[in-house]
Amino acid sequence: MKLNGLNFLGNARSGESKVTFQAVNPSTDENLPPLYFEATADEIDAAAVKADDAFQQYRLKSGVEKAVFLETIAEEIASLGDALIERCTSETALPSARITAERGRTIAQLKLFAELLREGSWVDARIDTAQPERQPLPKPDIRSMQKALGPVGVFGASNFPLAFSVAGGDTVSALAAGCSVVVKAHPSHPGTCEMVAEAVLEAIEKTKMPDGVFSMLHGTSNAVGMGIVTHPFIKAIGFTGSFRGGKAIFDAAAGRAEPIPVYAEMGSSNPVFVLKNSLFQNAESIAAGLANSVTLGTGQFCTNPGIVFVQRAAEAAYFQQALAEKISEVKMDAMLNSEIHRAFENGVSQLSANSDVEILFAGSAETVKPNRAGAQVFTAAGSVFLNDASLEKELFGPATLIVIVEDEAQFLNIARRLSGHLTATVFGTEPDLEENRQLISILEQKVGRLLINGFPTGVEVCHAMVHGGAFPATSDSRMTSVGTSAINRFTRPVCYQNFPDFLLPDELKDNNPLGIWRKIDGELRK
Amino acid sequence: MKLNGLNFLGNARSGESKVTFQAVNPSTDENLPPLYFEATADEIDAAAVKADDAFQQYRLKSGVEKAVFLETIAEEIASLGDALIERCTSETALPSARITAERGRTIAQLKLFAELLREGSWVDARIDTAQPERQPLPKPDIRSMQKALGPVGVFGASNFPLAFSVAGGDTVSALAAGCSVVVKAHPSHPGTCEMVAEAVLEAIEKTKMPDGVFSMLHGTSNAVGMGIVTHPFIKAIGFTGSFRGGKAIFDAAAGRAEPIPVYAEMGSSNPVFVLKNSLFQNAESIAAGLANSVTLGTGQFCTNPGIVFVQRAAEAAYFQQALAEKISEVKMDAMLNSEIHRAFENGVSQLSANSDVEILFAGSAETVKPNRAGAQVFTAAGSVFLNDASLEKELFGPATLIVIVEDEAQFLNIARRLSGHLTATVFGTEPDLEENRQLISILEQKVGRLLINGFPTGVEVCHAMVHGGAFPATSDSRMTSVGTSAINRFTRPVCYQNFPDFLLPDELKDNNPLGIWRKIDGELRK
Repeated sequence: MKLNGLNFLGNARSGESKVTFQAVNPSTDENLPPLYFEATADEIDAAAVKADDAFQQYRLKSGVEKAVFLETIAEEIASLGDALIERCTSETALPSARITAERGRTIAQLKLFAELLREGSWVDARIDTAQPERQPLPKPDIRSMQKALGPVGVFGASNFPLAFSVAGGDTVSALAAGCSVVVKAHPSHPGTCEMVAEAVLEAIEKTKMPDGVFSMLHGTSNAVGMGIVTHPFIKAIGFTGSFRGGKAIFDAAAGRAEPIPVYAEMGSSNPVFVLKNSLFQNAESIAAGLANSVTLGTGQFCTNPGIVFVQRAAEAAYFQQALAEKISEVKMDAMLNSEIHRAFENGVSQLSANSDVEILFAGSAETVKPNRAGAQVFTAAGSVFLNDASLEKELFGPATLIVIVEDEAQFLNIARRLSGHLTATVFGTEPDLEENRQLISILEQKVGRLLINGFPTGVEVCHAMVHGGAFPATSDSRMTSVGTSAINRFTRPVCYQNFPDFLLPDELKDNNPLGIWRKIDGELRK
Repeated sequence: MKLNGLNFLGNARSGESKVTFQAVNPSTDENLPPLYFEATADEIDAAAVKADDAFQQYRLKSGVEKAVFLETIAEEIASLGDALIERCTSETALPSARITAERGRTIAQLKLFAELLREGSWVDARIDTAQPERQPLPKPDIRSMQKALGPVGVFGASNFPLAFSVAGGDTVSALAAGCSVVVKAHPSHPGTCEMVAEAVLEAIEKTKMPDGVFSMLHGTSNAVGMGIVTHPFIKAIGFTGSFRGGKAIFDAAAGRAEPIPVYAEMGSSNPVFVLKNSLFQNAESIAAGLANSVTLGTGQFCTNPGIVFVQRAAEAAYFQQALAEKISEVKMDAMLNSEIHRAFENGVSQLSANSDVEILFAGSAETVKPNRAGAQVFTAAGSVFLNDASLEKELFGPATLIVIVEDEAQFLNIARRLSGHLTATVFGTEPDLEENRQLISILEQKVGRLLINGFPTGVEVCHAMVHGGAFPATSDSRMTSVGTSAINRFTRPVCYQNFPDFLLPDELKDNNPLGIWRKIDGELRK
């Protein structure tokens, strides 16, 4: 595929700006062709207007029609073949095995949402039947279901160039809900974005979806993103990235004349608690697993375990040593881009300069090759952690902090003072867990996903997944950005009172033509 | 019951402030004893701290325990007897038959949520079973359900002193979800609030619920409300009232260090569209029904039909006359309070002074008795409506505006430009409706509830009800404030990965001890 660097205004291509940029190969710092055209204010407006027009038709598509659309996108992505893998590895420095697996995940995710649409019950159809004879007032017939919210703005993540990008979790759940989508392509992998956008356009053509159901805009400046967020036709935002970026979008969206929901996944330190007996019995295997989890994808996972709490004991010292040793054995690739690399180096410098924090292992980065990070293991006392809020902040990259906690009371105190994170993990034997129910009860108020004796990296795309968590991990803890429930972010309920059958959506018609589960007078029935 | 005017800080009573106020009987403008103590900053903090403490215990209560609590509140409200009805009518000028019916609704609402809790499936339990042998990576066991969000601040409405107040829809759905509640009592009916709060406290004592699960604060100043909204322990807000009040709360909540969700129901003009054949055939009965709907409760319903669109025709003139005549026959009581009365009079003056708006009927208010409103019927052309955004704004009280629309294109144009409302209503014969599917498709994007050939006043408390709608009708169109789905406002999903069975909530244990519906590997099962 020849890349041309243009913006996608629905099915049209456009490059009006004189401002352009190029992708950079982070492994070599070399520019990659072509030039990408920063979207202009007019182009942003055109995309939003098309999205609004298309929404009027797309929102009426049946579940099966939308399923075929998603399945066709999946096929078109698959048929991009090795060219996609090659471009993506060159833009991200992520190894091709990883990108291949991520492509598999992206395709499976599209198919899972297609399945959800074919089955159809996700709309939460409810029917309360009329009681015309009820006293003192008759009860009307009321039926409700979830309907699409409107055009959605999607901001892809740098660290998952396929699964959280152009046709990733946000886009697929918005399209599944019946929303049109305007994607802000991540400037760190614009070529990958363009290839996937071409695949989406192929699918639009093949399945005759309305022009404007999908647009994609390029840009390195905040203006493009903010243009999408503040456009009156945009009705919700999906975002995965930094706290700073996500919070700026949240604030802009809340400040609009018509505020709109923002689903920003803004990162997390994913605290891990290693309980006493588990530490005594499994220090080595936990250390090995954590070393792998901390360094996976050069530490660039939202679910990277950035803080590990262990109780002060001889075994804690052994654990510190084991984790540092295991991490020292892992070879690091280049980070995703120079900005992320610089931020990691800055964060490492700050922690290293903190006199209350001890360095257990400081991997030296290869300085000959660009954007290489050295993995880091730090340690600090529980009392230090309690008094220094900066230690809880995410350090995006291959680093972790072992916090030595004095006793169970301090464990609980730390847990209670934690802010929101995507995940929390507890390692414990059965007696450990029995004794620490209160810890688990506290942690479940902070995070979207709680793990026992596992590692938080690896987010399964399934029905029960919650990739979310209390602020500041996300801007809306009521939702998940991964798994089929993610569709709920882009819908709102509508109820129909006293509607004749022919005017009702199929999901709510008397004879249940779609054969979906419905709550009829409070009882689930098919 | 002897009223004492104190704030409820959990189970304790407190009146530290020197600032006090009294309820006023709007029918007579006489003060009603006792003095009510404005909550101080310390009292607000104490209530929030207690709510946070209580939440740690209350969130672990079983569905049955919470159901018994709600049922006991219902019993205690019933046992307040005529004293409640009398105090409430004297504070609101609403007739005793209405208050009696509203008490019935409030009690039924508590019982409906109790039923929901006893049945238990509302938690949306999901289980994705493990596949340890899966390649390339094993699939973990993941289970999720909805959990309570935290302490909730509730602002009661003036116009539903029982059903949307202290133990109304917001409080009952928050308590059902497992949240503790801090109520801001409406200063327009503080005695009613105190009596209901006493009933809640009786229920807390009888069912041994934790001290702090319910608090109530008095105040006429914004400081009390804002003190609740900005308190770090408060995790969500339920509000019913004016746009100005709701938007100020929304902005304050979005501006917190940790933003929190605000569910503000901020009013609506509830547009009604009378289609051609329906106008020709049923002008009289529609006019009669609308006259009743417009004047119900002295026009003080959120769902009052404030704008009626009819097509220009001879029958439209007949309809105008009929509606004016029917409305002229209704006797008006005093409005809820002098502030609402003044706002209504101001709104009427403004409309009357608008040279593009014609007055069809101007009820003269009895000037001898205080706070009486005269019902009003205005009319304007479609082109006027399209060019004057002020005409779409809610005028809270017994008034309505008939808009004469030129043709079907203008109907659609108007519908497309409408902002969000709680309801929209279409009157049409079967051919009318067949021809106007596009109108209905547009309207369903604006409102929470669409009615065919009915009247929007009267909001059924049931499973399918959506009392919501796009901004500015509400601050969060994804939710409803009436009906059992209202519980979803106060929860967030949590997932549990690789949990041993004994650590899981009952809702997610292998053997389904509660017998609830669960989505297992994507299939609903019991």
